[in-house]
Amino acid sequence: MPAIESPQNRIPKLLRALHTKKGRAEHGLALVEGPNGLADALAAKRLAFLAWCPDVADEAVVQPLLRKAERGGIPVHELTRKAFAATADTATPTGLLGAAGVHLLRLTELSLAGKSVTFLALHEIRDPGNAGTMIRSADAFGARAVIAVGGCVDLYDPKVVRATAGATFRLPLAEATWDEFRAWTKAGEVSIIAADLAGKTSLPQLQWPARSAILIGNEAHGLPPEVASRAGVRVKIPMPGRAESLNAAVAAGIMLYAANNRISQGPDGEK
Amino acid sequence: MPAIESPQNRIPKLLRALHTKKGRAEHGLALVEGPNGLADALAAKRLAFLAWCPDVADEAVVQPLLRKAERGGIPVHELTRKAFAATADTATPTGLLGAAGVHLLRLTELSLAGKSVTFLALHEIRDPGNAGTMIRSADAFGARAVIAVGGCVDLYDPKVVRATAGATFRLPLAEATWDEFRAWTKAGEVSIIAADLAGKTSLPQLQWPARSAILIGNEAHGLPPEVASRAGVRVKIPMPGRAESLNAAVAAGIMLYAANNRISQGPDGEK
Repeated sequence: MPAIESPQNRIPKLLRALHTKKGRAEHGLALVEGPNGLADALAAKRLAFLAWCPDVADEAVVQPLLRKAERGGIPVHELTRKAFAATADTATPTGLLGAAGVHLLRLTELSLAGKSVTFLALHEIRDPGNAGTMIRSADAFGARAVIAVGGCVDLYDPKVVRATAGATFRLPLAEATWDEFRAWTKAGEVSIIAADLAGKTSLPQLQWPARSAILIGNEAHGLPPEVASRAGVRVKIPMPGRAESLNAAVAAGIMLYAANNRISQGPDGEK
Repeated sequence: MPAIESPQNRIPKLLRALHTKKGRAEHGLALVEGPNGLADALAAKRLAFLAWCPDVADEAVVQPLLRKAERGGIPVHELTRKAFAATADTATPTGLLGAAGVHLLRLTELSLAGKSVTFLALHEIRDPGNAGTMIRSADAFGARAVIAVGGCVDLYDPKVVRATAGATFRLPLAEATWDEFRAWTKAGEVSIIAADLAGKTSLPQLQWPARSAILIGNEAHGLPPEVASRAGVRVKIPMPGRAESLNAAVAAGIMLYAANNRISQGPDGEK
């Protein structure tokens, strides 16, 4: 295939459109940057196509992925520098981009099977780096899914995808309103474990229920009282120091670590 | 005092200079943005002066701090919009900036007193948001100090200071080469606890020594083998999931949480 030269070609235009939530919703695709994230999307059979610019990319870095994609029947588009610039990709200097299918599940599509199940629910998390880091941690600690509740940042925002380090394509992601989320936890007997600076239960003392959804609130404001008051347990991470609070992604990571420890060492023994 | 109008005035010029490491070293001052960080610097008696722009700032937000500073004898400079723009502050729309004294200690200035002491050491951490988040967590979990080892981001970079949420002004910060750090840990009987994906000890099983320095490696490459091999213990955070690793700041937060738990609940009982 000859290189795409025109910025008006549908490929650079499509990649540019994927910078916006509207564009992603319209095409059902998300923008993925960098060889590692793209390799994860490919492994998950979610990669729709690749676009690369030989004038920008380090061929030694990108060629293995390009060849693997081509062997898998994934279209690979070569773009001139001018056409590549039109993708409006400013964050990565790698000269390699791709589009991957967006999968946002409904709560009812999430499996509740197993002796111990942990979900991570984000409530009005606005920072894409935080949201992505939390998805990465949830994947590392074997959570079942991540659920965006209320007005969270779009989990397929390119900055979120980048911060997940590939977890976007391994872990089920879901979106719900607070009312939907609450109804689902009730119906499925999933306990809401709210991270809350005013919580009465100290995290190391928590008796984890079989099915739990760790709930993390907004970076600046935490969980609103009407939300925190509906949680099954409000848990405080013990902090003897002087800082008022932890970064939201750090708090989520500690909660997931503690949830995973109870699974591997708790009285129930196995997962 | 009349408002400063000229971008060539020493105050906007000084604030602009504090965006660079060279400027900070020359003046012994760091740039602090936003009312919360500035209030923390003031409370710690580290605030050198404030600069604000009435055309930009929300007076209701900034006035309490301005008055408190003036009562404490801290100079408050009023800048016109043009002079304020010359401070090159693009990150905060609050119209309020300040300069605070840089304190970077030597290792020999750090206290080793107490039954249980935890330090957090960063090895070649490059992302300012990560470094700041780690300082915030270290403060929250009562670590004694944070030590930048090797080629870390400058701990007084404005982006680091912002991410610490004020902890910059509460927690001792130190800087050292790897050789200095190693010599100090040996002399002070401080065990290096390295966070290492290839570690043999699982974090929940770790018997924490009385004096420990948690060592966190670079975001992309972790700890180099010649560094990790010098650690007293190489600790792995148990991760049953598919992600290859955690974000460095999340890993640091989990290590600090675990260190703090042993202090509050371990056989030694008290701190």
